[in-house]
Amino acid sequence: MELTVYVNPFSQPSRAVLIFCKANGIEFKEVTIELDKMQHRTPEYAEINPMKQIPAIVHADFKLFESHAILIYLASTFPGVADHWYPTDVRKRAKIHSVLDWHHSNLRRGSVDYLFNSGVAIAFGLPMDPKAADQGKKLLLESLAMIDSYWLQEDGPFLLGNSQPSIADLALACEVMQLEVVDEKDRDSILSSYKKIPKWVDNTKKAVAPYFDEVHSFLPVAKEMLKELISSKQ
Amino acid sequence: MELTVYVNPFSQPSRAVLIFCKANGIEFKEVTIELDKMQHRTPEYAEINPMKQIPAIVHADFKLFESHAILIYLASTFPGVADHWYPTDVRKRAKIHSVLDWHHSNLRRGSVDYLFNSGVAIAFGLPMDPKAADQGKKLLLESLAMIDSYWLQEDGPFLLGNSQPSIADLALACEVMQLEVVDEKDRDSILSSYKKIPKWVDNTKKAVAPYFDEVHSFLPVAKEMLKELISSKQ
Repeated sequence: MELTVYVNPFSQPSRAVLIFCKANGIEFKEVTIELDKMQHRTPEYAEINPMKQIPAIVHADFKLFESHAILIYLASTFPGVADHWYPTDVRKRAKIHSVLDWHHSNLRRGSVDYLFNSGVAIAFGLPMDPKAADQGKKLLLESLAMIDSYWLQEDGPFLLGNSQPSIADLALACEVMQLEVVDEKDRDSILSSYKKIPKWVDNTKKAVAPYFDEVHSFLPVAKEMLKELISSKQ
Repeated sequence: MELTVYVNPFSQPSRAVLIFCKANGIEFKEVTIELDKMQHRTPEYAEINPMKQIPAIVHADFKLFESHAILIYLASTFPGVADHWYPTDVRKRAKIHSVLDWHHSNLRRGSVDYLFNSGVAIAFGLPMDPKAADQGKKLLLESLAMIDSYWLQEDGPFLLGNSQPSIADLALACEVMQLEVVDEKDRDSILSSYKKIPKWVDNTKKAVAPYFDEVHSFLPVAKEMLKELISSKQ
């Protein structure tokens, strides 16, 4: 059964899905959806994902969107995926769901609201909203503090004190990596207070080497593109 | 193993968990967390849920928060729960994850942002933010339109065209029910454009009768309390 993955490396959830497939030897056809050309808004793409967002997958005749749902589906469907990514143990699995659900309304919301309203909006021809950016940054900082003090509270190298990574590590680490697109000074000031986060991101990167770096190699390019766009509009 | 459920009937996700337990004959001890007394902010409750939110559960020595994760855990752990709530079939399950993930950043976010910033904030001594209320209402309306046109697009009485309810029906229907706390005229103007939503909420209610009405009986009381609070502050 052919698996097609609709993604763009600028999108955090797309990168998590891409890295997961590559690290687990899952064969797939990659279709890049060009966001600046509004390819996610075409009627053709709406047939794949009516929410007009990436990522989405088509596995034979089965269509699915929402990155967490995709990661769970891939981990549950492809036989070569090691158990630690999405454990069969009900309690371990429940804890991973808890992290992923928390992610939606905390780290993800904070990160997207901050980054969109402090720069990314311009790439879509939309105005930046400084108040929304401030609120997003506040939530982002609170979320990073929670990762540092709670989700990484135990001694294991991964979230929940696990000795091996789960799909939650991949989803959240790709979100933190999105800060690569902001000015280095701003990024450093955001991340500098958190002791465990840099090491955890590095652990996740190493666990899926070389794919983490490979999939993230687009971010410095995106950062330059964004910088040019912002200065051209100011 | 004793199950303790920490809830407040004013919270949509709390109600979904309460109804799920009652409808599935799951025995539990209910602990009400009084939000107006800030019991969710006490150090004692932070031991149960460090995020200081409801609902949360303790099952013997296992603590869990985030309502979707709780619903999945309960459906996977208690033997009397029928398969349709959280199907073992990987694809059916994936679609339910997809609805639940979508819920976080769409219906849930829109509903909470709208309701909090147009009234509920006052109960917590916080100012209302009319711009945030408008943005929340916009997202709420878009989300309701998506439920009406996409998630309920097939002919089945429940989300995804299913013939029996899943945990997603319960989670989303409890969210829509929260509109009971707003002025009747406002609620009618919000819900009047959607053809399938009232019938779907009613189907969900009937599938878990009498527990849906029983658990929602607090909402008219909450509405009056809110009304009085708002008029006392104006």
